[in-house]
Amino acid sequence: MESNKSIISDYTSADDAAVVRLNDGKILLQTVDFFTPIVDDPYAFGQISAANSLSDIYAMGGKPLFALNIVAFPIQKLANTILTEIMQGGADKAAEAGIPIVGGHSIDDHEPKYGLVVTGEVSESSVWTNSGAIPGDSLVLTKPLGTGIISTAIKKEKANDLVIESAVKSMTMLNKKASEALKEFEPNAVTDVTGFGLVGHLIEICKNSQVSATINFSQINFLPGVIDLANEGIIPGGTKRNLDYAEKFAHFSESLSPTQKLLACDAQTSGGLLISLPETEANRFISVFGEQAIRIGNVAEQNNYVVSINP
Amino acid sequence: MESNKSIISDYTSADDAAVVRLNDGKILLQTVDFFTPIVDDPYAFGQISAANSLSDIYAMGGKPLFALNIVAFPIQKLANTILTEIMQGGADKAAEAGIPIVGGHSIDDHEPKYGLVVTGEVSESSVWTNSGAIPGDSLVLTKPLGTGIISTAIKKEKANDLVIESAVKSMTMLNKKASEALKEFEPNAVTDVTGFGLVGHLIEICKNSQVSATINFSQINFLPGVIDLANEGIIPGGTKRNLDYAEKFAHFSESLSPTQKLLACDAQTSGGLLISLPETEANRFISVFGEQAIRIGNVAEQNNYVVSINP
Repeated sequence: MESNKSIISDYTSADDAAVVRLNDGKILLQTVDFFTPIVDDPYAFGQISAANSLSDIYAMGGKPLFALNIVAFPIQKLANTILTEIMQGGADKAAEAGIPIVGGHSIDDHEPKYGLVVTGEVSESSVWTNSGAIPGDSLVLTKPLGTGIISTAIKKEKANDLVIESAVKSMTMLNKKASEALKEFEPNAVTDVTGFGLVGHLIEICKNSQVSATINFSQINFLPGVIDLANEGIIPGGTKRNLDYAEKFAHFSESLSPTQKLLACDAQTSGGLLISLPETEANRFISVFGEQAIRIGNVAEQNNYVVSINP
Repeated sequence: MESNKSIISDYTSADDAAVVRLNDGKILLQTVDFFTPIVDDPYAFGQISAANSLSDIYAMGGKPLFALNIVAFPIQKLANTILTEIMQGGADKAAEAGIPIVGGHSIDDHEPKYGLVVTGEVSESSVWTNSGAIPGDSLVLTKPLGTGIISTAIKKEKANDLVIESAVKSMTMLNKKASEALKEFEPNAVTDVTGFGLVGHLIEICKNSQVSATINFSQINFLPGVIDLANEGIIPGGTKRNLDYAEKFAHFSESLSPTQKLLACDAQTSGGLLISLPETEANRFISVFGEQAIRIGNVAEQNNYVVSINP
């Protein structure tokens, strides 16, 4: 009765999105992500959550095809207009990605949650993974860091409008443009920087690629206000856990302060792409994508420290 | 830059699952569903939620291909073994459906929630909808009703072990066998009976098909203990809302008691298939699928009452 072996010959969930190979050779990518509001503006929250969900497809070089909404909302407690705004934010980002939202599921819940299930496709020869980094590669990051610290500052009412605005602008930006620009090159490894933070995701790349990497703290771009907020001690729990984990595999220069270590490990939402590619390609990519992409370090042969963070 | 028009030429979310037509003619079905525990046994809850999610694909004549887990769990409050059991229940039902679970998303939450995103496929010529019922069709239901009332009774500690066991057995049963048996026939309309209840889903079929339907209360199969529980006043809020809605479009015989009306509208989880097909085919389907499938009424030309419920 069963004929699944002829339909699905292979799949993996080791990367950002699940990869499913159908028997006609088409490769589908599928991802699901949803979370509670991290900014006060419902429309921006919807945009951020949708951009974050779509990012997994872009990080693998895929093309999003369609999405489903995932909605949890306290219908008795909050005005329905809030839900409408959240979903409009998601719909607008889906439209920007060029895909329809074809359905979804909503539940009544204590607090709002929103996200997307996104299905995309990619040709087998051009799928990017986090396991192909090569010694000599440059490491490029396409968005500044600090969204975790700013989200926590928003909850504590410590973030001013300018800080919030910059963070929202970064988090609502799709990784579509970076992904499309990168298709002209041949990156060896790509991931998007999300909950595990820059150092955590770089550790994953290095472990999977059996290489080591060095990054320079001074080259990392931070969102406006983030360093001040971190110095005030505003650090999310996830960022602290990221540093605890990172210290098992990474060597932080002794001249880095405890706060700087935390900054390098900040848990991101809708972060940028972290790309490992040959140095000449890195320079060309940055010139194509624009100055928001920053070269932050390089890849070397495997050694004692999986990742080293220099001042 | 955009080429989505060549990739997705059509989609709809009017039925149980979203239908996406890719440019190679393949039709993908995609659905997402998740909810809080409705039984005390974590393993059974995982099975039920997975069976419920898979049902949308079976109700459209589709073949499930793969799934993603959706998990919410209070990691600080509940033992991790509970989560393991929930996910094992889901994994076992996915295995029974012949599909892999290729990824998913988990969040920390006040109360547990579990469900699946399921992707399936179907050929365009054989997709079943809820809009093709034809006057003269028989209506067949493949599972007994009453899971809403029993779930509420479980919460109120009013359900005995035998009652719970029968309900769990029904809710964990995949609609796979019914769907596969039905493929030998040519059903005119199919849906699965879930939150809107039997009468609610039948109203949808009738409206979409521009027909009327009559069902006979005495022919409906109820799970053991359900009628007694309903008579004790154990009725979920969703079931009451279903009756409120149904009374706008349905005519209930005056000899039906208020409780009987509620029973016919009980909100189901992982309910059976409701099938509209020619009478001779109905008899043949029942003989193939087994006696659990019950003929409960028939379809007629559109008249004043969208749905009539006889004693």
